[in-house]
Amino acid sequence: MKVGGKHYRSLWADESQRVVHIIDQTRLPHVFETRALTSAEAVAEAIRGMRVRGAPLIGVAAAFGLAMAVAQDPSDQSISIASNLLRTTRPTAVNLAWAIGRMRERLGALPPAERAGAAWTEAQAIADEDVALNMAIGQHGLALLEREYKAKRRTLNILTHCNAGWIATVDWGTVTAPIFMAHDRGIPIHVWVDETRPRNQGLLTAWELAGHGVEHTLVVDNAGGHLMQRGLVDLVLVGADRVTRRGDVCNKIGTYLKALAARDNKVPFYAAVPTPTIDWTIDHALKEIPIEERSDDEVRIVRGLDADGRFAEVKVAPNATPVANPAFDVTPAELVTGIITEKGIAHANEAELLQFWPRTTESKAYLT
Amino acid sequence: MKVGGKHYRSLWADESQRVVHIIDQTRLPHVFETRALTSAEAVAEAIRGMRVRGAPLIGVAAAFGLAMAVAQDPSDQSISIASNLLRTTRPTAVNLAWAIGRMRERLGALPPAERAGAAWTEAQAIADEDVALNMAIGQHGLALLEREYKAKRRTLNILTHCNAGWIATVDWGTVTAPIFMAHDRGIPIHVWVDETRPRNQGLLTAWELAGHGVEHTLVVDNAGGHLMQRGLVDLVLVGADRVTRRGDVCNKIGTYLKALAARDNKVPFYAAVPTPTIDWTIDHALKEIPIEERSDDEVRIVRGLDADGRFAEVKVAPNATPVANPAFDVTPAELVTGIITEKGIAHANEAELLQFWPRTTESKAYLT
Repeated sequence: MKVGGKHYRSLWADESQRVVHIIDQTRLPHVFETRALTSAEAVAEAIRGMRVRGAPLIGVAAAFGLAMAVAQDPSDQSISIASNLLRTTRPTAVNLAWAIGRMRERLGALPPAERAGAAWTEAQAIADEDVALNMAIGQHGLALLEREYKAKRRTLNILTHCNAGWIATVDWGTVTAPIFMAHDRGIPIHVWVDETRPRNQGLLTAWELAGHGVEHTLVVDNAGGHLMQRGLVDLVLVGADRVTRRGDVCNKIGTYLKALAARDNKVPFYAAVPTPTIDWTIDHALKEIPIEERSDDEVRIVRGLDADGRFAEVKVAPNATPVANPAFDVTPAELVTGIITEKGIAHANEAELLQFWPRTTESKAYLT
Repeated sequence: MKVGGKHYRSLWADESQRVVHIIDQTRLPHVFETRALTSAEAVAEAIRGMRVRGAPLIGVAAAFGLAMAVAQDPSDQSISIASNLLRTTRPTAVNLAWAIGRMRERLGALPPAERAGAAWTEAQAIADEDVALNMAIGQHGLALLEREYKAKRRTLNILTHCNAGWIATVDWGTVTAPIFMAHDRGIPIHVWVDETRPRNQGLLTAWELAGHGVEHTLVVDNAGGHLMQRGLVDLVLVGADRVTRRGDVCNKIGTYLKALAARDNKVPFYAAVPTPTIDWTIDHALKEIPIEERSDDEVRIVRGLDADGRFAEVKVAPNATPVANPAFDVTPAELVTGIITEKGIAHANEAELLQFWPRTTESKAYLT
């Protein structure tokens, strides 16, 4: 999507097949800076240091990292060492393991001499497939926003939580794809962006929207209920880390509170996800999905720019204060109006979601 | 209440009738520091600079400030100048205007020679009445917690939002009074403390609870729904800036979201307030109470300690990002289990609240 009027992907490969460029996300939203990565080691460092983040994006980055290792040395041993290096950067990231697995399967079937070219092509294919997936989500979401706009004929106010934007994918994003497409079609859109404590990913969303020229307003996470009470939200649109077969949505902590406010104020609540995010092995998220408890420091320490415009951190809670930091919550299907996927939109119930049941093994890809 | 094992009020007068001591709240929760104020000007500076904050407390501080001015010069003109100085420190604070009005009424009836002693006595009376009011709220809230504890026979988990604690009053606080009393009776209590963006007043609550030895855990505002879903909250207890005659609760932004989660998970939701906080002129808060929009900077800038332990600020959102900052929201009476007051506990409906209808003009005092 656009940054400063120019189109970017969040990761793009050089024609030379030796360099991958990334946007350094640790410096957003304050500084836009790209980096050129030329080795598996450099890619591993970028993933570990959260310079590239977002489940789909780190999978793609790792695939290119492996391709760089193969270009240097196409032996089985080289592939094995690089795979291990890349996989351990974020041990719980399923997309990362999946992308590396797909690369190894492709490369293992080839003689070493043919591997370098094939590796780069395969990594590029993974990237392009991610773009196509998000575009398809965007098309279905766009139809929904077009219907809303035809009914209301005024600026549509969308509230979102966390960042399910294009920089977490290769392009478009899940939540942002329908928004960008609607904006490009001339539908007036305004987005309420939740700050999303403790990690403030909402600031990434605000940065993305600003880059594409979409009107938006940043609010603290506490404000969403009030906005809905006052009729200032037409639709809530969030991403998801996992959706169960009955339509429970497991997403960033605080999503459930917004869904409650949406129901109380008759505001439709949608999750935009690729179908592989639907975990067909799980019915009830509340009973079956354990919630990750993350580091105290995410709550205790806030990062930003100091008075001199340099990156700095402040401690808001003393070390002695006990802190809990659950990272996700569950929005039960009963609160969810619909799930927007690349295959279409379904109501949040098993009967409708089953139309998206995977017919090829390929779709296991995104299970997270 | 206690700080480091020693009992403090948040403001206390010297025997000499010349000095008032305050806890400098701008340095909490990181540094505990008291200040001695010896003039109306010093009190005005402390109120304006938020060194003393909380509606009841700034009223008391202003009363002492006026008494200091009268000690210097008991003339009508002196009283008028000091009143004006103190009232304009926080122009919208109703308690402040009320306390000054009460002082002026008392002093105007006396010859100048008798005013200095009477002024100090009256200011002290206002302070002591505030303590008594909060103690009475505590007693009624305590009975509620005792019933809960008898039913459950395990640690009671209370969730609170913002700071309705003792440092916003002269002592005890509204929400904290029942908690401190229950703790002192040996009832095991654990408090989930919402951070309360954008101003992070939850950190003051955590500091107060730590001082009194009450077990607590700080969480981001997003976490409360998840905690209630998992059965980790027995009771939500908040303060209020205004309660309507039908029981709508106007309180810090985000309160409504917690009330929704409480209803969804069958957790009782109480507001603890002095009866003068009940605004008998208003039925429906959503229709009748305008919500204050506060400065962008509260959202944009976060204050804390830097790596060297010095107070510092960081900017989390770029200046170009549009920000909205509504300060309060409305929790409709239908979501409120009860209102805990100094006169008893009522369900949140007009019929029950009317038992607290003021019978003396004195009670207009706290109308905010």
